[in-house]
Amino acid sequence: MKKLEGLIEAQQLDAETMWEIFRIADEMQAVDYDPILKGKIIQLFFYEASTRTRFSFASAALRLGAEVISTENARAFSSAFKGETLEDTMQVISRYGHMIVLRYDKEGGAKRAQQHATIPVINAGDGPGQHPTQALLDVYTMIQKFGKLEGLNIVLAGDLLNGRTVRSLCYLIAKHFPKNKIWLVSPSLVRMRDDIKEFLTRYQVDWYESDTLDGILEGADVLYQTRVQTERFDEEKERSLLERIQQEASHLFINVEMVERMKKDSIILHPLPRKTEIRFRVDNDQRAWYFRQSDNGVAIRMALLKMVLLGY
Amino acid sequence: MKKLEGLIEAQQLDAETMWEIFRIADEMQAVDYDPILKGKIIQLFFYEASTRTRFSFASAALRLGAEVISTENARAFSSAFKGETLEDTMQVISRYGHMIVLRYDKEGGAKRAQQHATIPVINAGDGPGQHPTQALLDVYTMIQKFGKLEGLNIVLAGDLLNGRTVRSLCYLIAKHFPKNKIWLVSPSLVRMRDDIKEFLTRYQVDWYESDTLDGILEGADVLYQTRVQTERFDEEKERSLLERIQQEASHLFINVEMVERMKKDSIILHPLPRKTEIRFRVDNDQRAWYFRQSDNGVAIRMALLKMVLLGY
Amino acid sequence: MKKLEGLIEAQQLDAETMWEIFRIADEMQAVDYDPILKGKIIQLFFYEASTRTRFSFASAALRLGAEVISTENARAFSSAFKGETLEDTMQVISRYGHMIVLRYDKEGGAKRAQQHATIPVINAGDGPGQHPTQALLDVYTMIQKFGKLEGLNIVLAGDLLNGRTVRSLCYLIAKHFPKNKIWLVSPSLVRMRDDIKEFLTRYQVDWYESDTLDGILEGADVLYQTRVQTERFDEEKERSLLERIQQEASHLFINVEMVERMKKDSIILHPLPRKTEIRFRVDNDQRAWYFRQSDNGVAIRMALLKMVLLGY
Repeated sequence: MKKLEGLIEAQQLDAETMWEIFRIADEMQAVDYDPILKGKIIQLFFYEASTRTRFSFASAALRLGAEVISTENARAFSSAFKGETLEDTMQVISRYGHMIVLRYDKEGGAKRAQQHATIPVINAGDGPGQHPTQALLDVYTMIQKFGKLEGLNIVLAGDLLNGRTVRSLCYLIAKHFPKNKIWLVSPSLVRMRDDIKEFLTRYQVDWYESDTLDGILEGADVLYQTRVQTERFDEEKERSLLERIQQEASHLFINVEMVERMKKDSIILHPLPRKTEIRFRVDNDQRAWYFRQSDNGVAIRMALLKMVLLGY
Repeated sequence: MKKLEGLIEAQQLDAETMWEIFRIADEMQAVDYDPILKGKIIQLFFYEASTRTRFSFASAALRLGAEVISTENARAFSSAFKGETLEDTMQVISRYGHMIVLRYDKEGGAKRAQQHATIPVINAGDGPGQHPTQALLDVYTMIQKFGKLEGLNIVLAGDLLNGRTVRSLCYLIAKHFPKNKIWLVSPSLVRMRDDIKEFLTRYQVDWYESDTLDGILEGADVLYQTRVQTERFDEEKERSLLERIQQEASHLFINVEMVERMKKDSIILHPLPRKTEIRFRVDNDQRAWYFRQSDNGVAIRMALLKMVLLGY
Repeated sequence: MKKLEGLIEAQQLDAETMWEIFRIADEMQAVDYDPILKGKIIQLFFYEASTRTRFSFASAALRLGAEVISTENARAFSSAFKGETLEDTMQVISRYGHMIVLRYDKEGGAKRAQQHATIPVINAGDGPGQHPTQALLDVYTMIQKFGKLEGLNIVLAGDLLNGRTVRSLCYLIAKHFPKNKIWLVSPSLVRMRDDIKEFLTRYQVDWYESDTLDGILEGADVLYQTRVQTERFDEEKERSLLERIQQEASHLFINVEMVERMKKDSIILHPLPRKTEIRFRVDNDQRAWYFRQSDNGVAIRMALLKMVLLGY
C-alpha cells in the first residue's frame, strides 16, 4: 500500500502511478457516494477565484465522504493576507486538515507551498505555471476515446504562452506518450515558451509550430482549443497588445464549417471556460468532447484524493 | 411517488403540489436534524451575493443530511466567469452534484439554467424576475396565521417595480387564492409592472393601486412591506431619481403609530433585509410577523429539497 | 452538566470555566475526528475576511462532526447587507443553525449580536475590540510551556493601540493570573489604551510601558510580538502617520541576534499573520513558539464548541 504524497507538477508522475490514477478514476466513474474518506478534512485554498475547479474538487471530496473547508478568493479578501507569505499560511493551515488543494496566482506557488506545509498539497493551478489535474483529465479523456495515446496528431490551439493547461499537458504527453505528433498553433505573440519546446524535443516528440489551422485541422485526431488568458494582461497598459492577440486568435476560432473538415473520428477538447473560441453550434457535433472532458475531472480528482489520503 | 423537477417560477405550481409543499413544510418545522438526504450534493450557485437566502438553503440542506457546495458571489470573483455563458456553467456543474440552487442577476436566468443543466434547478431569485421560494414562504406564513388565504385584504407596499418577491407573490395568490383583494401601494415612479396587473385581472383578483396607505392600512389583514431596491439603480446616473423615489417611499414607512391604526388581528410581513421602512420599535408589536416569516423559509426549503431529491 | 452560553469577552470567564476550557482542550489535542456534534450547524458569519480564524473554527467544528455554514466577507459582498443592522441579521440567522461564530468590523459587535441572536454567539474578533478565543489560546500556550502562568515577565510588543489580541490577553491575565509582570512596548503613537492599563492596575498587575525592547528583552519569559494593524488606518489620509508608526515599530522587529539575547527557556509568540516583525530566520530557534501557538487554536475552539453545544 503506497500513498501519493501530493501532486505539484504533471512531470513528477511515473508511468505506473499515472496508470493507477486512470484505473482508479475508471472505478470512480460509477461512484455517486461512497464515504471512504469519512473524517478527513480537505482544504480548498484558492488565492484566486476558479469556481469551476473548486467545485470539481469539492464534489470529489464530498462524494467520498470527506469534509471541505474552502476560501474562494483569499488574495482579494484579506488585507492581512497581502502581507503574509504563502509559506507562513501553508504552515498554519496544515493543522486545520489532512490535505491542501492550492490555487495560487504566481508560478511556482505549489512547490513553495509543499515545502512548508506538513500535509499533502495538490496543485490546482499556479498562475501561468502548471495545472496537473487538468492535464491528467485531458490525457484520460484522450485515452477514453482512442483506447491508447499513441500515433495521434494532437493540435494545441490558442494562447499557448499563458495557458497553463497546455503546458502541463505537453509535459505529461512527452514523458509518457512520446509516439505522437504535437502541433502548437497560436498567434505569433503568444507562442509556446521555449522550455516546453525543449522538453518535447528532449523526449523526442515530433512537434510543429504554426499560426494557422489550415492544413492541420484535417489531420487532427485531437483538437485542443484554449481561450486567450485575458486576465494575465494589464487592462490599461496592454490593451492594444491584447487586441492584436485576440484579432490573430480569432482566425483559430472553431465553427461548424471547420469541424466539418475534421476527421469523423476526431475529438475537440477545451479546458473551459469557453468564450468565443468554439462556437456554440459546435456543441451538437459528436466530435465536441469538452463537456465530457470536464465531467472526467471529478473522477480524476476522486482518484487523487483517495490515493493521497488512503493509499493504493 | 413523484419528484418535483425543480422550481423556476411561482406560477408553474399546481394547487396540489403547492399544498403538498406546505404539508411537508409543516412536518419539517419539527425537524432539527434528519439525514434523509445523506450522500446528496446541493450546489448553491450565487452569481450575486445574498447571504440570507444562501444560508437559509444551506441550513435546509444540512438539516436533512445533504452536503453543500457554495459560491457566494460568482459574478464579482472570477474574471473567467465574466466571459462564460450561464448555459456552459450550468452544463459543467451538473456533473458536480444532484441539484443546483441558482441566484442570478438577470431576469430569466433560472429558466435558461434549467434548459442546460441536467440536474434539477431551484430559482433563488433572478434579478428583477422571480423569487418563488420566497413567495411560497410568504403564502405559507399567511395561511399559518389565518388558517386559509381567502377573503383577505392584502396590501403590498414599497418598491413594487423592482421587488421580485411581490411579483412572485402576486402570481401565486392570483393562481391559487383568487378570492382576496390586493392593494398595490407604491411611489408613482416604481409602480407594479403591467404584466402582473394583467395577470391579476385575468385571474379575477380585485386589485387597487395607490401611492398612499391612508384609508388602506385600517382595513389590511396583511401588510407586506418592501424596501426600495437601491442596488437596481445606477449610483451615479440615477441618483436624483433614486432620491425622489426614496422621498416618496418614506411616506409608506411603518412606525408604531401606523401599526396602532391596523386591525388587532392583522400581520405585517417583509421579505427582509429591512432598512428603515419598518421602524425597529414595531418589532415588539404582536402584528410584527416578519421574523417568523423569515424562519418559515427553512421549513419551506427543506420541503422543496426533499420533494426534488426524494420525491413525495 | 453546564453549558457555556457563548463567549463575548475574555473577562467574562471565571477561573473554573477557563481551566475547564484548558482541560478539555488538552483532551482535544488527541482528537483527529470524533463526531460528537453530529447534526449541529455552526454558522461562521464573518463581516470582514479572516481566513485563518475562519478555517480554524471550521476545522474545530468539522473534527467534531458538526456542519458549517460560512460567509467569508459579508460586508464587502452584499449591498443589501450594508443597509441592514447587525441586530436584524443575527435574529434572522438564529433560525439557520445552533450557534454563531461572529467576526465583526466594529468594537462591541459581538455584544450587540448576542442580545439579538437566540442561539449562542462566540466572538471571533470585533474590530479593535476583543478576540477572546485568541487570548485563551495565548494563555493556554504559555501554560503549556511553563506549567503555570505565574511569576513571568510577559512582554507585549508592537501596535498595542489597534491590536485586539493584546487587549483580550491583558484582561485574561489580569483577572486570573495577577502575579506576573507585563511590559507594554510600543511606538509612542500606538500605545496601549488607558482602559487596559487601569484594568491591570485595578487587578494589581505590575505593568511597565516602554518604546524600546532594550533592557527588557533579556528578562522576558514570553515575548508576544504583534504587527502594525495597517488595515485600521486610512490609506490616503493617514499615510504619513502610518509611516512614522512603522518606522518606530521597526526598532521592535525581532531578528536572530535579538533572540540570542533572550533567555534559553523563554518563548516568542505572535497571533499571526506575521509581516516583517519577526524575521523568518527566527523560525528555526527553539524559542519560536508562534506556529505551535497557532496550532493550539484548533484544540481551544474544539473545547469551546463542545462546551457550548453539549455542555461540560
